[in-house]
Formats: sequence, C-alpha cells, structure tokens
Amino acid sequence: MFATVMHGPGDVRYEQVEDPKILKPTDAIIKLSATCICGSDLWPYRGLQPQDGPAHMGHEYCGVVVEVGSEVRNIKPGQFVVGSFCLSDNTCPHCEFGFQSSCQQVEFMTGAQAPYARVPLADGTLVPTLEMPDADMIPHMLAASDVLGTGWYAADAAQVREGGTVVVVGDGAVGLMGVLAASQMRAGRIIVMSRHEPRQKLAREFGATDIVEKRGEDGIARIMELTNGIGAESVLECVGMEQSMAQAMGACRPGGTIGYVGVPHGVTFDGQQMFFAQKRMLGGPAPVRRFLPDLMNRVLEGKIQPGKVFDLTLPIGQVAEGYKAMDERRAIKTMLRVEG
Amino acid sequence: MFATVMHGPGDVRYEQVEDPKILKPTDAIIKLSATCICGSDLWPYRGLQPQDGPAHMGHEYCGVVVEVGSEVRNIKPGQFVVGSFCLSDNTCPHCEFGFQSSCQQVEFMTGAQAPYARVPLADGTLVPTLEMPDADMIPHMLAASDVLGTGWYAADAAQVREGGTVVVVGDGAVGLMGVLAASQMRAGRIIVMSRHEPRQKLAREFGATDIVEKRGEDGIARIMELTNGIGAESVLECVGMEQSMAQAMGACRPGGTIGYVGVPHGVTFDGQQMFFAQKRMLGGPAPVRRFLPDLMNRVLEGKIQPGKVFDLTLPIGQVAEGYKAMDERRAIKTMLRVEG
Repeated sequence: MFATVMHGPGDVRYEQVEDPKILKPTDAIIKLSATCICGSDLWPYRGLQPQDGPAHMGHEYCGVVVEVGSEVRNIKPGQFVVGSFCLSDNTCPHCEFGFQSSCQQVEFMTGAQAPYARVPLADGTLVPTLEMPDADMIPHMLAASDVLGTGWYAADAAQVREGGTVVVVGDGAVGLMGVLAASQMRAGRIIVMSRHEPRQKLAREFGATDIVEKRGEDGIARIMELTNGIGAESVLECVGMEQSMAQAMGACRPGGTIGYVGVPHGVTFDGQQMFFAQKRMLGGPAPVRRFLPDLMNRVLEGKIQPGKVFDLTLPIGQVAEGYKAMDERRAIKTMLRVEG
Repeated sequence: MFATVMHGPGDVRYEQVEDPKILKPTDAIIKLSATCICGSDLWPYRGLQPQDGPAHMGHEYCGVVVEVGSEVRNIKPGQFVVGSFCLSDNTCPHCEFGFQSSCQQVEFMTGAQAPYARVPLADGTLVPTLEMPDADMIPHMLAASDVLGTGWYAADAAQVREGGTVVVVGDGAVGLMGVLAASQMRAGRIIVMSRHEPRQKLAREFGATDIVEKRGEDGIARIMELTNGIGAESVLECVGMEQSMAQAMGACRPGGTIGYVGVPHGVTFDGQQMFFAQKRMLGGPAPVRRFLPDLMNRVLEGKIQPGKVFDLTLPIGQVAEGYKAMDERRAIKTMLRVEG
C-alpha cells in the first residue's frame, strides 16, 4: 500500500510501503475511515525534534477492524473502533488507576496516516461502537482519538469544576478541544488566549466566554482584570513553550491547578519559584483511553462536534500539502480522507 | 526585653531589644507560652541564604494575648491563641479558597523567639481556645503553629487517602509530622525514608509502617519492591534538595501526587521530564490557618501528640545552643521555654 513517511524536516511523502500485518498475537489490523495530522507531527517536520531515519507517521485513527491476532478477545473483525494514540493493555495497575498513557506496556501508535494500520494491544486500546456510525460522525470520532482526548485531559488535570473560572492558553486544535471540554464540564467562565480571528470564532462556538488577545505580561494583566485580580482556578496549558507556560503560571490563582498537555520544549522550572507560586500542576501524555467511551458516547448522542476543529480536509494522497498548510498556519488541523 | 537576634551565619544571640508594640490597629501583642526553632532557621544559620543585617528570629508561637490594636474584633486580651507562621487576613479570596499563605495581605511572622511578640493581622491569623490549656498541652499546641501544619499540608497537597500508600521523603521534624498527618488521614501504608534510628522510632510512633534506609536509586528501587513495582500514590517531599526531590519523583506512581513543603534550594525541573513523569505536584508555604482549628481540636481531644517532635527543650536564654544542636543534628527540633 501507499502510506505517509517523513524522510526529514519538511520532507513528507506518500509512498509505497509494506502492508501492515499482525506481528504479535495481541495486534489488530484496521482499515482507516479517516486519519489526521497532529500538532506534534510538526515538531520533527520543523526540525525541532531529532529523527532516526524515515518515520511512518500518524497516531490518530478510527476505522474498521479487518484482522485480529490469536490472543485478541474483545475486538472482532467488522467492528468500528476508535483507539488512543497511546497503546495500553488497560489491565495493569497504572491503567486501572486511570493513567493508561503510563501503562506498564505502553507503546505509541505510528503509521496511522495510511489506509491500513496495525494497532498493538488491541483489546486494551480499541473501543468499538455497537453499530457502524454514519459517515458524518467520522470526523468527530476521529477527533476523540487524540486531540479531543488530550484537550479533555487538560481540563480534567486542571480540575475544571462546574461554575469555575478557566483559562485556556493556546488556540491550536488541542486548546480549542480544551475549551469544548471545559464547557462540557460546565465551567462558568472560559477565557481563551487567542489572536487569530477564525480560531476565536471556533473557540466561542465551543463555549469560550472571553477572548484575551494580549500576550505575556499584558495578557496576564488582562486576565487579572477579568477575574478581579484573583486569577483562574483552572488553567489549561496547550502549547508547551516557555512563554505559554509562564502565561499559564501567571493566569492561575494560588491553590489553582494547571493541566499542561503541550509537550514542553525548552521549558525549565525553578523549584523555588514554583514553590512560592503555589499552583497544582499535572501534565503528561493524555490517558485518552480513560475518557474514550464517554467521549464517543457524547459524539454519538450529538452532544459535541469536535470534528469542527478540522478546517482542512484532503485526500490522503495530498498529505504533504496537509503538513504544509498546518506548518504555515493556513490550517488549524488537517483531516485526511482515506478512499476505497 | 531580651530576644533572639541572628547577626550572621552561626551567630545567634539572646540580647536586649526594644519591646514589641502595637504598630497597626490590626496587631496584637502576645506573651509567648513557648516557642521553637524551625528547620528553615538553619538556612541563614548555615549561610545558605543571604541575610540583610541582624534579624529577629522566630515564627512559631502560641501564648496569651496581652494587648490588641483598635481594629481587632475577635481576639481579646487574656485568650490563649495559636497562629500560623504566615500572617493572613482570612477574608480575601485566596484565604477563602484555603490558601491563606498566599493571602493578598500576607506577611511572614518574625520575632517569636522571645518572651513577647507582635502578631500582625491578629483577627485573621490567631485562633483562640475556649479555655486556658494545661501546661502539658503547650508543646503540642506550639507544634500546630508551623511544623505540624506544614506536615499536614504536605499530606493534604499529596492527596493522602484512606487506605492509600504514602511515601515520606525526609525524617526531619516536618517529615515526622507528615507521617502523623498521613496516619490521621488513615493512609493504609506509610513508608518513611530515614537512616537515623531515633527518628525511625518516632516515625513508627507517629504511624509509619515501613522504613527505607537506602537513598537515591537504591532507595527508589526499595520502594518499588515494597509497592509491587507501582510506586506510591501520595509522596510528601519534606526536604527541598535536588536529591530528595528526585527521590520523591521516583517514588511516586504515574498519576500520583507529590506534596512538597521543603523550600527548594538549588532545585530545577526539566519541563519535558516532568511532563512524561506524569505526577501531580503542589507545594508552597503551608496555609496552616486552614487546618489550625482542626489541629488544635485534635490536640485538645488527645488524639495527637505532635509535641513529641521536640527532643530538646531549653530555656530561651540558651537559644544559641538550641540552634547549634539542630545544626549538628543532635536534636530534631528544639523547643524554647519562656519563663516568667
């Protein structure tokens, strides 16, 4: 088959590769219904993350099971499934504690920007639906695989509460999903830091109540103004840069909580500053599997439409253009249609 | 009167100073029943924290109110009171949120290693008892002012739960109080990292179930052995050094929580390491005022005897020897008797 391979910074090709096959008895092979490009795929694309030779890209996926290994018990060919970008057995103590992204057997999904993909730990990782969802549900189901699950985790880690005040730092796809999550958790006020008009619009659609266009000290001052000098009790950090983390720290009230899901790049914390700032912090790769059944239900019940975050859809053969559009910020997030 | 003044590293004197007096209408003057030396007093004593000229030492206190300013409403002369080392109005939004140590008017207590002391923000800071406590209650009441309150906050911040597994890093006075707190919160297992026999004994008395003598990687390995390779869900970091923080990180399970109350000295965190470690963290100066009424009740009801942490008691005139004994680790914590 053809699939997406990154050969180096800026060099993404849709090219001939070997068909995926069952390698372990706990694997499944799925036929992708759709896939997409993640903000984190841009790190190596921009040369900001070292890469060991050509890489099979893609870790967000949903589709139909075509084959399972001999030890797979719960997942059956013909089922429509969504899985997390973190592969987990869902039975170890860390999974049972709700942190499947730290599963004792954790692996990270690869090779999903393709018509077919191998999913290791299929029983633990994949969540099937009872029926085949309608085509218009696919973008929303796909979003649950990572970007929605990650935004949801940011809100969960930030302990968003009914009626609470929330600040979302970052108006990328994850930040926008964080807004949606906070809104579903019935936050009273959701302030988004954003300077891009189309993203502001989408943020409002997802439930944002206030937009702060300023950044840095000015941005923090504006948030203090909006919160009577108190700050927010929950802050979702959805970027991972030094400036955005400082923003999150400054926006959070003492005793408040920061959920950070942007993989930190070049961020360090001074222990003493962190101590006196007195903010609760939890970050990490999202344990999407914990939330997945609930998120899929919300999608199927029509409560949420996270797929709106895909503002560009291309046939998978044009995946290179999909990367380019995101790199140049012409697209928030690119969905890739898989035909045939 | 005579009081304790630190002139520089290693140079603590009990010498003539001006009597404390009401400076603001929200102040109170108390006659100390007893006071003590804090582990944090050793930072400047050891020259590890710069000092601006001679400093009036002491921030842990209980005693009898002798005078109040014109705006003090709730505290009256003749009352026995305990206060936190953090002075707070207890009415601002941060106080109402339970973070009195980040009060909008926060000040830090000084000058309590003396027969009399001024307590600013008296109404917000001081908690009176209904009756004058017996003399044998004084060490326990005094402990509530900081060391117990700080250990309690470590356990609270680390989200200690009934039946849960707890690791306490540090067998100093605060660590030992953390053990007591975790035990009162009905933790199922309390593992203390300690290599000092007298402290181990006290830790067991306060409720420790396991002692780990090893440190560093070996110490972490031992904790993993004790917890079936999982780690603890709650870790209390009660030291503030790079090694102890690494210990806390290593002992905590993914998704677990670290409460850190040792003021970090020379500690930095790499954002990406922190992210992938996936531990919840909350530290800071303890909002003792939040816990104080409850802690004082537990003492008065005879449920806890935190004053056992004082293994050296001296008349306040010998305060210099009290510092020396703690600096040389001959004493865990020194109580100072205030006569007359």
